[in-house]
Amino acid sequence: MALKKKPVNGMKDMMPGEMEIRDYVIGMIKETYRAFGFSSMETPCMEHIENLSSKQGGENEKLIFKILKRGEKLKIDQAESEADLVDGGLRYDLTVPLCRYYANYGNDLPSPFKSLQMGNVWRADRPQRGRFRQFMQCDIDVLGEASNLAEIELILATSTLLGKLDFKNYTIRINDRRILKAMAAFSGFEENDYDSVFITLDKMDKIGLEGVREELKNNNYQETVVDTYLGLFEQITGDIKGVKYLKEKLHGFLDSETADSLEEIISCVERAKETEFNITFDPTLVRGMSYYTGTIFEISMDEFGGSVGGGGRYDEMIGKFSGQITPACGFSIGFERIIMLLLENNYQVPTGKVKRAYLLDKNISGKELEQIFIVAKEQRAAGKQVTVIRMKKNKKFQKEQLNNEGYTEMIDCYAGGNN
Amino acid sequence: MALKKKPVNGMKDMMPGEMEIRDYVIGMIKETYRAFGFSSMETPCMEHIENLSSKQGGENEKLIFKILKRGEKLKIDQAESEADLVDGGLRYDLTVPLCRYYANYGNDLPSPFKSLQMGNVWRADRPQRGRFRQFMQCDIDVLGEASNLAEIELILATSTLLGKLDFKNYTIRINDRRILKAMAAFSGFEENDYDSVFITLDKMDKIGLEGVREELKNNNYQETVVDTYLGLFEQITGDIKGVKYLKEKLHGFLDSETADSLEEIISCVERAKETEFNITFDPTLVRGMSYYTGTIFEISMDEFGGSVGGGGRYDEMIGKFSGQITPACGFSIGFERIIMLLLENNYQVPTGKVKRAYLLDKNISGKELEQIFIVAKEQRAAGKQVTVIRMKKNKKFQKEQLNNEGYTEMIDCYAGGNN
Repeated sequence: MALKKKPVNGMKDMMPGEMEIRDYVIGMIKETYRAFGFSSMETPCMEHIENLSSKQGGENEKLIFKILKRGEKLKIDQAESEADLVDGGLRYDLTVPLCRYYANYGNDLPSPFKSLQMGNVWRADRPQRGRFRQFMQCDIDVLGEASNLAEIELILATSTLLGKLDFKNYTIRINDRRILKAMAAFSGFEENDYDSVFITLDKMDKIGLEGVREELKNNNYQETVVDTYLGLFEQITGDIKGVKYLKEKLHGFLDSETADSLEEIISCVERAKETEFNITFDPTLVRGMSYYTGTIFEISMDEFGGSVGGGGRYDEMIGKFSGQITPACGFSIGFERIIMLLLENNYQVPTGKVKRAYLLDKNISGKELEQIFIVAKEQRAAGKQVTVIRMKKNKKFQKEQLNNEGYTEMIDCYAGGNN
Repeated sequence: MALKKKPVNGMKDMMPGEMEIRDYVIGMIKETYRAFGFSSMETPCMEHIENLSSKQGGENEKLIFKILKRGEKLKIDQAESEADLVDGGLRYDLTVPLCRYYANYGNDLPSPFKSLQMGNVWRADRPQRGRFRQFMQCDIDVLGEASNLAEIELILATSTLLGKLDFKNYTIRINDRRILKAMAAFSGFEENDYDSVFITLDKMDKIGLEGVREELKNNNYQETVVDTYLGLFEQITGDIKGVKYLKEKLHGFLDSETADSLEEIISCVERAKETEFNITFDPTLVRGMSYYTGTIFEISMDEFGGSVGGGGRYDEMIGKFSGQITPACGFSIGFERIIMLLLENNYQVPTGKVKRAYLLDKNISGKELEQIFIVAKEQRAAGKQVTVIRMKKNKKFQKEQLNNEGYTEMIDCYAGGNN
């Protein structure tokens, strides 16, 4: 079979320039989240196919790269469907494996367990510009903490990280699934219709209030119900007052504790944040995944028309693995989008190391060669990045290339002579 | 289907304690190799099945985790063999993907290209203690450099890294495939028999010179040939003198340049090394992979009965992808073995950060809560690792747990009172 030079369809080879930024951001993520008490953990990239097909992953379950059974377990003759051929798959997110992990080791882990996970995930999506079938995810989660300390720390840690990467003009929008439901109940929607209503609501930023009204009416919801519902949105402000308004208005439909907790999260983040950003109450925020049970949040950035991260509370998912209900809340930053934005902004990694290259004439050998490596060692000890390479015939072009790589000091070395 | 709590067979979940060491070592690897001018690069974990089955991977090609075709491409009814079902596989090493990468982008990369790759690889080996089916590899390679500058920098960079991780009593054994062949030719072996002879020679450290003699004779090689061959090994010393001896002795069978270059590598490394270790000439070193064309080397560590890294020159592999012969040389450290040794030696990561925990009474809320997060921010800015958690009923036990995690400062916070 002929060898192929390109990467597999929809996946990406990383060039050194991008890797320099990725390595820097990864280091910054680990340092920042560690300072907030999060601990790194990791699971294998491969998961049991049963766990990946447990309906926790929503649409992602249709996009699994599946792993063929091996040895005697593979019976091609008898196979009728994919399920007969595979026993594992590549994970499509880090949340399902985290829940398996916590269900398995929870007793040996700190309580609460504040985890940091960075790793690749795979989705066999249709390839498109800027979206790849393998991409890095970066999640922090607080497991075993029922109170809003989890939300506050997650938001503070994430915003501190973004600040260190020089992001400023962004907004963290926050809402609560229980507020979403209470607003729908108050207005008179049937519980069975909530998901459909929220799918329409989710389009608010694209089609506006009147667009939402039209779509809801087209979906045959009662005009008075729809008008009551949208009347609420017209009254709500994107701050603590908006939360307070709903707390009163939805009395009997919404636990006052839910509103109080959300108010506390917003004001705590506003007062204790380390960097510049906005946090707003956004009752139109829905978030797709069905596993969310409480608070939900999302990062919107002006430079990027969409979310660059998000998360929320999912108090019921770990119980599906362990049988024991465990409160859980997580925040995932869109690592690949952040890298893309930094690349587009021509971000310069602040390394500060001077780069020096020794260019060796081909006749240099023996003692002279040793001497150059000793000097290179000394230069490295003095904090420089040092490479030792052979001089090429076209030395001018070679030096231009080195300059492009960031080498500012170039030392020519000739046999018998001196640099 | 029931959910599974354990990781897939033969793969490992990483606990926070191990991850702390892994993160530290990864950071140290990147910092050290960067100072030698190596640049990070990365390829997808999945490779074309054609590339993985190209006979470059030797025995590893039998251990591939294969990826099921998707959508219309998968025709289970018509499938007769595995090849009909799959289009990709998880990489079993980083060298095959590196060669594909260089064949594809070589024109845009620096020359020589000094690459650093860290990433997981997968092999469906029979699970056994301490060996896993997913493991991290860490390779540095110099592509496009024909001279021994490549070998010298690879060995210096690798040994500098090991020194920074406090490894001292180890030996880098070095040999050359061309010396192996010249010794066999000089003794009178047929070229067709070399591989078989080297398989026996490779057992020298286990069965000794007489064991090797017996096995070779049992394999029906002529007694005079075998005795001539082993007579050479009895004369060779593990230093530059050994190389000089062979250079003379094998005149007509071995290019004198090969011997001179090896001598130069050994003396250059000895003089310019940054840390304590031995480098020895070892004519019994074989290294399994058939793709090596010149120098080969391996790290032996007393604490560990086996290799903790190795590499060599493989000047012909990139040409299989690109059609253009490109000199190449690489050094891979046994990342997982190094982590295992550090864990066994109870290695303490030198972070130096003081860890502080605020334990909050359940009644703390509102302004008091905000105040605690503000103080936590200030403590972080002052360089501490700070976590804010709820106080549990069994506070004594909770504090013992925190202490185990390394928290030395614990601040009790009560509503209305003060810490």
